[in-house]
Amino acid sequence: MADENSDAYQAAGVDVAQAENALTRITKRLRTTWPESGPGRVALDFGKYANIVELAGGQGLAICADGVGTKALIAQMLGKYDTIGIDCVAMNVNDLVCVGAKPLSLVDYIAVERTDPTVLDQISIGLTDGAVQSGASIPGGEIAEMPGVITGWKPGLGFDLAAMATGTVALDAVNVGADVAPGDVVVGIGSNGIHSNGMTLARKVFFDDLGMTADSQIADFGRSVGEELLEPTFIYVGESVDVLDQNLVTGLIHITGEGFLNLTRVEAPVGFVLDTLPDVPAVFRVMADQGGVPRSDLYGIYNMGVGMGLITRPENADAVVALAKSRGKPAQVIGTVTAEPGTVRITSNAFTPVDLVNDGKTFRPA
Amino acid sequence: MADENSDAYQAAGVDVAQAENALTRITKRLRTTWPESGPGRVALDFGKYANIVELAGGQGLAICADGVGTKALIAQMLGKYDTIGIDCVAMNVNDLVCVGAKPLSLVDYIAVERTDPTVLDQISIGLTDGAVQSGASIPGGEIAEMPGVITGWKPGLGFDLAAMATGTVALDAVNVGADVAPGDVVVGIGSNGIHSNGMTLARKVFFDDLGMTADSQIADFGRSVGEELLEPTFIYVGESVDVLDQNLVTGLIHITGEGFLNLTRVEAPVGFVLDTLPDVPAVFRVMADQGGVPRSDLYGIYNMGVGMGLITRPENADAVVALAKSRGKPAQVIGTVTAEPGTVRITSNAFTPVDLVNDGKTFRPA
Repeated sequence: MADENSDAYQAAGVDVAQAENALTRITKRLRTTWPESGPGRVALDFGKYANIVELAGGQGLAICADGVGTKALIAQMLGKYDTIGIDCVAMNVNDLVCVGAKPLSLVDYIAVERTDPTVLDQISIGLTDGAVQSGASIPGGEIAEMPGVITGWKPGLGFDLAAMATGTVALDAVNVGADVAPGDVVVGIGSNGIHSNGMTLARKVFFDDLGMTADSQIADFGRSVGEELLEPTFIYVGESVDVLDQNLVTGLIHITGEGFLNLTRVEAPVGFVLDTLPDVPAVFRVMADQGGVPRSDLYGIYNMGVGMGLITRPENADAVVALAKSRGKPAQVIGTVTAEPGTVRITSNAFTPVDLVNDGKTFRPA
Repeated sequence: MADENSDAYQAAGVDVAQAENALTRITKRLRTTWPESGPGRVALDFGKYANIVELAGGQGLAICADGVGTKALIAQMLGKYDTIGIDCVAMNVNDLVCVGAKPLSLVDYIAVERTDPTVLDQISIGLTDGAVQSGASIPGGEIAEMPGVITGWKPGLGFDLAAMATGTVALDAVNVGADVAPGDVVVGIGSNGIHSNGMTLARKVFFDDLGMTADSQIADFGRSVGEELLEPTFIYVGESVDVLDQNLVTGLIHITGEGFLNLTRVEAPVGFVLDTLPDVPAVFRVMADQGGVPRSDLYGIYNMGVGMGLITRPENADAVVALAKSRGKPAQVIGTVTAEPGTVRITSNAFTPVDLVNDGKTFRPA
């Protein structure tokens, strides 16, 4: 319980004060399990992309857990299960690199309403693909059949897919953005779609509000809604490990749940101005223009075309962009680091006709 | 996907040949993610209690994943959430020690239908308790709100609770029962109830077949059915680490899903005769006597009063029993190792009026 910010609480409309009290109790309690020194020492606090447990010899074991969320329902709608495993791996390994770690190994956890060997076989295709892309092994996992706990799009189809990943990092190479400084440059690595966040809202917009089905064709997508939403999440391990190995970055930011608010997770007391963002991908434009989702909201939920932010000294920005491009990903400078702690300012472009600034929880017009 | 025997397939009544073909494809595919040498090498095959990934310096990282299954529904029925976290930890750490590892750290994964901070707070009490009992930290985890994927006993109550655990073991101290030999003695450490396996069948028997509710009092239990089923799983880490440290065991067997068939998971080509089992706990007796579950079936599903088997040379049996008792657990010699590979023979006692022998998948009268 340690990506344990209060996202889920807010999404649920839970009383925030009550939720934050509970969260404080939970994290305080769990911290009592942390050895204070020696092997086993827990190196980071809750709220980072992953935590790090001290091993012998100055090594750290990075550890995190994440799942595909309700993207599983999209796979069910399309009857297509061979890529969702990529999302499962991506959600974990893209977090691991953001503490400076290299993926080592992950175990999957598949909870199913009813066991369908063919579906499990298909899921393993994506898991394997994602693991190979990440340089991580899958040495084990768990399949649990749980009718009454797991449900799905239609009776019998339900499944949940999560994983827990480990990585290695020398303790003196842990990077949680402590050295990020005003004047640093943010290089944005392109996303390839909605990835695996905010799928509950996306499903509401496309299927409930707009009355579409997974098969509905959208010209801007060049394919169906379902195919667009199921596009497997980019894995950013290659370029992230490159820039870590070459000591080119001061911080790494996976733009995952909470969108650009993730930038404020760097350890250093800094802010950001993003003034050269790439064009907003069609999936988000349609959610705003046809679905009526306030544009400002989108920046606090989705990747908006940038799946990973690599923060670098200005003189290294070109090298970082070039490395990412050499890995086949779109990349460009998207902004700079400022001295305004906790603030992310998104300046107007064709999509956002006013500047947006975050108040720590959401984006609003400046 | 690596506890990946075909349990789930069988439980679902899935075509076994089809399932085994799929399982073969899955494990073959996942093995392609395993580096052949160097750090990251995967040391064991699928099907062990945990796998082991090679770290630097001759160290191994043991890794596994497991959850509480449908025991989550019992917690919902009772509105009692402060012990289910113990089960979650137990299911993982009791597996870890069975490859010779000491628990290091685990991350929880809680998927909820709707976020209830109070319930999450209660769940964290058990997680913390289990972690402290195991000497493991909980440095992080994930809470995912997934309406449409998670369901429960009543609307809004649904949750799933799982974890991934890591442990450490010197590569030359890995123990998967390769040295178990005919003549070795099996010491059984007592269970404290049904633990966290076979809960779907138990719910069917008590609630569907016998028409009871969670509140139904059963004299033999001295409490309600719900309280009996929710009893948190014993954690066997203390005594297991003791006997590993003192080099007193040739194998360790967590009696988890598939009950006494777990004994056949030792690496050595041996069998077992269990002729001095403890009395069968009331929860299983009631399932047989009132619920009509064939007694032979129970041995292939449940712990039947023995949660952990420690296999030892005869001259060390007394020391193993004494160590377990010093940790506050009931313990006694329950049988011996034979030269009949893959066979578990349970000789008649008051509960099983005929001898039982397994055919690799089930128990039947001898």
